[in-house]
Amino acid sequence: MKQRHRLTCPVAGFLNVFGDAWTLLLIREAFYGSRRFSDFQANTGIAKNILSMRLDLLVREDILEKHDVGERGTRFEYRLTERGRSLLPVFIAVTQWGNEHVYGAGREPVTLHERSSGEALSSLVPIGSDGNALDLGDIVVRPGPGASPATRRRIAAIAPP
Amino acid sequence: MKQRHRLTCPVAGFLNVFGDAWTLLLIREAFYGSRRFSDFQANTGIAKNILSMRLDLLVREDILEKHDVGERGTRFEYRLTERGRSLLPVFIAVTQWGNEHVYGAGREPVTLHERSSGEALSSLVPIGSDGNALDLGDIVVRPGPGASPATRRRIAAIAPP
Repeated sequence: MKQRHRLTCPVAGFLNVFGDAWTLLLIREAFYGSRRFSDFQANTGIAKNILSMRLDLLVREDILEKHDVGERGTRFEYRLTERGRSLLPVFIAVTQWGNEHVYGAGREPVTLHERSSGEALSSLVPIGSDGNALDLGDIVVRPGPGASPATRRRIAAIAPP
Repeated sequence: MKQRHRLTCPVAGFLNVFGDAWTLLLIREAFYGSRRFSDFQANTGIAKNILSMRLDLLVREDILEKHDVGERGTRFEYRLTERGRSLLPVFIAVTQWGNEHVYGAGREPVTLHERSSGEALSSLVPIGSDGNALDLGDIVVRPGPGASPATRRRIAAIAPP
Protein backbone atom coordinates (compact mmCIF):
# COMPACT_ATOMS: atom_id res chain seq x y z
CA MET A 1 0.00 0.00 0.00
CA LYS A 2 1.43 3.29 -1.03
CA GLN A 3 -0.74 5.62 1.01
CA ARG A 4 -2.18 5.15 4.48
CA HIS A 5 -5.76 6.03 5.26
CA ARG A 6 -5.96 9.06 7.50
CA LEU A 7 -9.62 8.63 8.38
CA THR A 8 -10.26 8.18 12.11
CA CYS A 9 -12.00 4.86 11.64
CA PRO A 10 -11.33 1.33 12.89
CA VAL A 11 -11.96 -0.16 9.43
CA ALA A 12 -9.44 2.25 7.91
CA GLY A 13 -6.98 1.40 10.70
CA PHE A 14 -7.39 -2.30 9.92
CA LEU A 15 -6.90 -1.66 6.20
CA ASN A 16 -3.66 0.22 6.86
CA VAL A 17 -2.22 -3.17 7.81
CA PHE A 18 -4.44 -5.67 5.99
CA GLY A 19 -5.58 -3.70 2.92
CA ASP A 20 -3.88 -5.80 0.28
CA ALA A 21 -4.29 -9.15 -1.43
CA TRP A 22 -1.92 -11.15 0.78
CA THR A 23 -1.62 -10.09 4.41
CA LEU A 24 -4.78 -11.77 5.66
CA LEU A 25 -3.69 -14.97 3.90
CA LEU A 26 -0.44 -14.82 5.90
CA ILE A 27 -2.56 -14.58 9.06
CA ARG A 28 -4.41 -17.70 7.93
CA GLU A 29 -1.03 -19.39 7.56
CA ALA A 30 0.08 -18.24 11.00
CA PHE A 31 -3.16 -19.64 12.44
CA TYR A 32 -2.53 -22.90 10.55
CA GLY A 33 0.88 -23.05 12.21
CA SER A 34 3.34 -21.63 9.67
CA ARG A 35 6.36 -20.01 11.29
CA ARG A 36 9.12 -20.06 8.70
CA PHE A 37 9.54 -17.83 5.68
CA SER A 38 9.69 -20.87 3.41
CA ASP A 39 6.41 -22.25 4.81
CA PHE A 40 4.55 -18.96 4.34
CA GLN A 41 5.94 -18.85 0.82
CA ALA A 42 5.20 -22.42 -0.21
CA ASN A 43 1.71 -22.51 1.31
CA THR A 44 0.44 -19.32 -0.31
CA GLY A 45 2.47 -18.93 -3.50
CA ILE A 46 3.32 -15.32 -2.61
CA ALA A 47 6.38 -13.80 -4.28
CA LYS A 48 9.38 -13.74 -1.96
CA ASN A 49 9.96 -9.99 -2.15
CA ILE A 50 6.34 -9.27 -1.28
CA LEU A 51 6.41 -11.85 1.52
CA SER A 52 9.51 -10.23 2.96
CA MET A 53 7.84 -6.80 3.01
CA ARG A 54 4.60 -8.16 4.48
CA LEU A 55 6.33 -10.09 7.26
CA ASP A 56 8.37 -7.00 8.14
CA LEU A 57 5.15 -4.97 8.29
CA LEU A 58 3.48 -7.57 10.53
CA VAL A 59 6.50 -7.50 12.86
CA ARG A 60 6.50 -3.67 12.97
CA GLU A 61 2.78 -3.77 13.72
CA ASP A 62 3.29 -6.22 16.62
CA ILE A 63 1.22 -8.95 14.97
CA LEU A 64 4.13 -11.35 14.47
CA GLU A 65 7.33 -11.63 16.48
CA LYS A 66 10.58 -12.59 14.78
CA HIS A 67 12.65 -15.09 16.74
CA ASP A 68 16.13 -16.34 15.94
CA VAL A 69 15.87 -20.07 16.60
CA GLY A 70 19.09 -21.06 14.87
CA GLU A 71 21.27 -23.34 16.96
CA ARG A 72 24.16 -22.69 14.62
CA GLY A 73 23.85 -19.62 12.47
CA THR A 74 20.53 -17.87 12.10
CA ARG A 75 17.14 -19.31 11.38
CA PHE A 76 14.11 -17.17 11.94
CA GLU A 77 10.58 -17.98 12.98
CA TYR A 78 7.61 -15.65 12.91
CA ARG A 79 5.20 -16.25 15.77
CA LEU A 80 1.84 -14.65 16.47
CA THR A 81 1.76 -12.08 19.25
CA GLU A 82 -1.30 -11.57 21.45
CA ARG A 83 -2.32 -8.78 19.09
CA GLY A 84 -2.04 -11.21 16.20
CA ARG A 85 -3.98 -13.93 18.00
CA SER A 86 -6.73 -11.38 18.62
CA LEU A 87 -7.45 -11.48 14.88
CA LEU A 88 -9.21 -14.82 15.45
CA PRO A 89 -12.76 -13.37 15.13
CA VAL A 90 -11.78 -11.61 11.89
CA PHE A 91 -10.33 -14.86 10.53
CA ILE A 92 -13.43 -16.83 11.50
CA ALA A 93 -15.86 -14.25 10.10
CA VAL A 94 -13.92 -14.09 6.82
CA THR A 95 -13.65 -17.89 6.60
CA GLN A 96 -17.36 -18.34 7.22
CA TRP A 97 -18.28 -15.63 4.69
CA GLY A 98 -16.00 -17.15 2.07
CA ASN A 99 -17.32 -20.66 2.69
CA GLU A 100 -20.93 -19.56 2.47
CA HIS A 101 -20.81 -16.87 -0.19
CA VAL A 102 -17.85 -17.71 -2.41
CA TYR A 103 -18.15 -21.52 -2.36
CA GLY A 104 -21.61 -22.28 -0.95
CA ALA A 105 -23.10 -25.05 1.17
CA GLY A 106 -21.61 -28.46 0.37
CA ARG A 107 -18.57 -26.94 -1.35
CA GLU A 108 -16.70 -25.45 1.62
CA PRO A 109 -12.92 -25.88 1.22
CA VAL A 110 -12.30 -25.96 4.98
CA THR A 111 -14.46 -26.13 8.05
CA LEU A 112 -13.74 -24.95 11.60
CA HIS A 113 -14.49 -27.10 14.62
CA GLU A 114 -14.27 -26.99 18.37
CA ARG A 115 -11.30 -29.18 19.26
CA SER A 116 -12.79 -30.77 22.36
CA SER A 117 -16.21 -31.69 20.97
CA GLY A 118 -15.51 -31.81 17.24
CA GLU A 119 -18.63 -29.71 16.65
CA ALA A 120 -18.60 -27.25 13.77
CA LEU A 121 -18.28 -23.67 14.96
CA SER A 122 -21.57 -21.86 14.70
CA SER A 123 -21.80 -18.69 12.63
CA LEU A 124 -20.17 -15.74 14.28
CA VAL A 125 -23.11 -13.34 14.49
CA PRO A 126 -23.86 -10.46 16.86
CA ILE A 127 -26.35 -11.39 19.56
CA GLY A 128 -28.82 -8.95 21.12
CA SER A 129 -29.92 -8.64 24.71
CA ASP A 130 -32.81 -11.05 24.03
CA GLY A 131 -30.37 -13.71 22.83
CA ASN A 132 -31.36 -13.47 19.17
CA ALA A 133 -29.10 -12.67 16.24
CA LEU A 134 -28.95 -8.99 15.28
CA ASP A 135 -29.33 -7.83 11.69
CA LEU A 136 -27.93 -4.66 10.17
CA GLY A 137 -31.03 -2.63 11.05
CA ASP A 138 -30.79 -3.68 14.69
CA ILE A 139 -27.39 -2.00 15.12
CA VAL A 140 -26.52 1.68 15.46
CA VAL A 141 -23.15 3.39 15.21
CA ARG A 142 -22.19 6.12 17.68
CA PRO A 143 -19.15 8.35 17.88
CA GLY A 144 -16.68 6.87 20.36
CA PRO A 145 -14.43 8.75 22.78
CA GLY A 146 -11.76 9.00 20.07
CA ALA A 147 -14.02 10.30 17.30
CA SER A 148 -12.54 13.11 15.22
CA PRO A 149 -14.79 16.03 14.23
CA ALA A 150 -15.03 14.49 10.74
CA THR A 151 -16.06 11.14 12.23
CA ARG A 152 -18.72 12.86 14.37
CA ARG A 153 -20.08 14.63 11.32
CA ARG A 154 -20.13 11.39 9.33
CA ILE A 155 -22.03 9.52 12.01
CA ALA A 156 -24.46 12.40 12.61
CA ALA A 157 -25.34 12.19 8.90
CA ILE A 158 -26.42 8.54 9.10
CA ALA A 159 -30.13 8.41 8.48
CA PRO A 160 -32.20 5.99 10.55
CA PRO A 161 -33.00 2.90 8.46
CA MET B 1 -5.89 -6.38 -7.84
CA LYS B 2 -4.08 -7.67 -10.88
CA GLN B 3 -4.15 -11.38 -10.19
CA ARG B 4 -6.76 -13.51 -8.47
CA HIS B 5 -5.82 -16.11 -5.90
CA ARG B 6 -6.37 -19.61 -7.22
CA LEU B 7 -6.06 -21.32 -3.84
CA THR B 8 -9.17 -23.25 -2.81
CA CYS B 9 -9.57 -21.31 0.41
CA PRO B 10 -12.35 -19.13 1.84
CA VAL B 11 -9.85 -16.45 2.92
CA ALA B 12 -8.41 -16.32 -0.60
CA GLY B 13 -11.93 -16.15 -2.02
CA PHE B 14 -12.71 -13.21 0.26
CA LEU B 15 -9.47 -11.48 -0.76
CA ASN B 16 -10.34 -11.84 -4.44
CA VAL B 17 -13.05 -9.25 -3.78
CA PHE B 18 -11.81 -7.39 -0.69
CA GLY B 19 -8.03 -7.67 -1.00
CA ASP B 20 -7.29 -4.00 -1.49
CA ALA B 21 -7.11 -0.81 0.55
CA TRP B 22 -10.60 0.48 -0.22
CA THR B 23 -13.30 -2.12 -0.81
CA LEU B 24 -14.01 -2.90 2.84
CA LEU B 25 -14.24 0.84 3.51
CA LEU B 26 -16.96 1.03 0.84
CA ILE B 27 -18.81 -1.73 2.71
CA ARG B 28 -18.54 0.38 5.86
CA GLU B 29 -20.07 3.23 3.90
CA ALA B 30 -22.88 1.02 2.56
CA PHE B 31 -23.57 -0.11 6.15
CA TYR B 32 -23.59 3.57 7.24
CA GLY B 33 -26.21 4.23 4.56
CA SER B 34 -24.29 5.59 1.54
CA ARG B 35 -25.99 4.82 -1.74
CA ARG B 36 -24.77 7.41 -4.22
CA PHE B 37 -21.42 7.56 -5.97
CA SER B 38 -20.85 11.07 -4.61
CA ASP B 39 -21.50 9.93 -1.02
CA PHE B 40 -19.08 7.00 -1.25
CA GLN B 41 -16.55 9.39 -2.72
CA ALA B 42 -16.95 12.25 -0.24
CA ASN B 43 -17.08 10.02 2.84
CA THR B 44 -13.94 8.02 2.08
CA GLY B 45 -11.78 10.31 -0.04
CA ILE B 46 -11.28 7.57 -2.64
CA ALA B 47 -10.27 8.65 -6.15
CA LYS B 48 -13.21 8.63 -8.55
CA ASN B 49 -11.66 6.23 -11.05
CA ILE B 50 -10.86 3.70 -8.33
CA LEU B 51 -14.33 4.12 -6.82
CA SER B 52 -15.90 3.47 -10.20
CA MET B 53 -13.93 0.24 -10.63
CA ARG B 54 -14.65 -0.93 -7.09
CA LEU B 55 -18.40 -0.29 -7.31
CA ASP B 56 -18.50 -2.16 -10.62
CA LEU B 57 -16.71 -5.08 -8.98
CA LEU B 58 -19.13 -5.09 -6.04
CA VAL B 59 -22.08 -5.11 -8.46
CA ARG B 60 -20.54 -7.96 -10.49
CA GLU B 61 -19.95 -9.86 -7.26
CA ASP B 62 -23.60 -9.42 -6.18
CA ILE B 63 -22.68 -7.42 -3.10
CA LEU B 64 -24.25 -4.17 -4.27
CA GLU B 65 -27.14 -3.69 -6.69
CA LYS B 66 -27.21 -0.71 -9.03
CA HIS B 67 -30.62 0.94 -9.30
CA ASP B 68 -31.62 3.76 -11.62
CA VAL B 69 -33.67 6.02 -9.36
CA GLY B 70 -33.69 9.06 -11.67
CA GLU B 71 -37.17 10.48 -12.19
CA ARG B 72 -35.87 12.46 -15.14
CA GLY B 73 -32.64 11.23 -16.66
CA THR B 74 -30.50 8.79 -14.77
CA ARG B 75 -29.39 8.80 -11.18
CA PHE B 76 -27.95 5.65 -9.73
CA GLU B 77 -27.98 4.21 -6.27
CA TYR B 78 -25.92 1.28 -5.00
CA ARG B 79 -27.77 -0.83 -2.46
CA LEU B 80 -26.56 -3.79 -0.45
CA THR B 81 -27.78 -7.20 -1.57
CA GLU B 82 -28.38 -10.04 0.87
CA ARG B 83 -24.88 -11.24 0.08
CA GLY B 84 -23.57 -7.78 0.95
CA ARG B 85 -25.55 -7.60 4.18
CA SER B 86 -24.08 -10.95 5.16
CA LEU B 87 -20.74 -9.18 5.56
CA LEU B 88 -22.02 -7.80 8.88
CA PRO B 89 -19.96 -10.19 11.06
CA VAL B 90 -16.82 -9.31 9.07
CA PHE B 91 -17.54 -5.60 9.50
CA ILE B 92 -18.14 -5.98 13.24
CA ALA B 93 -15.06 -8.14 13.80
CA VAL B 94 -12.88 -5.69 11.87
CA THR B 95 -14.39 -2.67 13.66
CA GLN B 96 -13.85 -4.25 17.06
CA TRP B 97 -10.27 -5.24 16.22
CA GLY B 98 -9.48 -1.75 14.93
CA ASN B 99 -11.03 -0.10 17.97
CA GLU B 100 -9.15 -2.31 20.39
CA HIS B 101 -5.83 -2.80 18.65
CA VAL B 102 -5.32 0.26 16.48
CA TYR B 103 -6.86 2.89 18.76
CA GLY B 104 -7.22 1.24 22.18
CA ALA B 105 -9.66 1.51 25.07
CA GLY B 106 -10.94 5.05 25.58
CA ARG B 107 -9.87 6.15 22.09
CA GLU B 108 -12.38 4.23 19.92
CA PRO B 109 -13.49 6.36 16.92
CA VAL B 110 -16.89 4.66 16.71
CA THR B 111 -18.83 2.23 18.85
CA LEU B 112 -21.55 -0.23 17.84
CA HIS B 113 -24.75 -0.60 19.83
CA GLU B 114 -27.93 -2.61 19.83
CA ARG B 115 -30.60 -0.22 18.56
CA SER B 116 -33.38 -1.36 20.88
CA SER B 117 -31.45 -1.38 24.16
CA GLY B 118 -28.61 1.01 23.38
CA GLU B 119 -26.18 -1.52 24.84
CA ALA B 120 -22.72 -1.77 23.32
CA LEU B 121 -22.32 -4.90 21.21
CA SER B 122 -20.22 -7.46 22.98
CA SER B 123 -17.06 -8.77 21.35
CA LEU B 124 -17.76 -11.12 18.50
CA VAL B 125 -15.93 -14.24 19.71
CA PRO B 126 -16.45 -17.92 18.95
CA ILE B 127 -18.28 -19.75 21.73
CA GLY B 128 -17.73 -23.40 22.61
CA SER B 129 -20.26 -26.02 23.59
CA ASP B 130 -19.74 -25.12 27.27
CA GLY B 131 -20.66 -21.49 26.58
CA ASN B 132 -17.15 -20.13 27.02
CA ALA B 133 -15.10 -18.19 24.50
CA LEU B 134 -12.79 -20.30 22.35
CA ASP B 135 -9.15 -19.38 21.80
CA LEU B 136 -7.01 -20.29 18.81
CA GLY B 137 -5.84 -23.58 20.39
CA ASP B 138 -9.44 -24.65 21.01
CA ILE B 139 -10.23 -24.68 17.28
CA VAL B 140 -9.26 -27.17 14.59
CA VAL B 141 -9.46 -26.87 10.82
CA ARG B 142 -10.70 -29.77 8.73
CA PRO B 143 -10.98 -30.23 4.98
CA GLY B 144 -14.50 -29.41 3.86
CA PRO B 145 -16.52 -31.15 1.12
CA GLY B 146 -15.03 -28.74 -1.45
CA ALA B 147 -11.39 -29.16 -0.42
CA SER B 148 -8.96 -29.48 -3.31
CA PRO B 149 -6.13 -32.04 -3.06
CA ALA B 150 -3.77 -29.15 -2.26
CA THR B 151 -6.07 -27.93 0.51
CA ARG B 152 -6.26 -31.45 1.96
CA ARG B 153 -2.49 -31.70 1.94
CA ARG B 154 -2.16 -28.27 3.58
CA ILE B 155 -4.56 -29.16 6.37
CA ALA B 156 -3.03 -32.61 6.91
CA ALA B 157 0.30 -30.85 7.53
CA ILE B 158 -1.05 -28.74 10.40
CA ALA B 159 0.65 -29.88 13.56
CA PRO B 160 -1.43 -30.08 16.74
CA PRO B 161 -0.68 -27.02 18.90
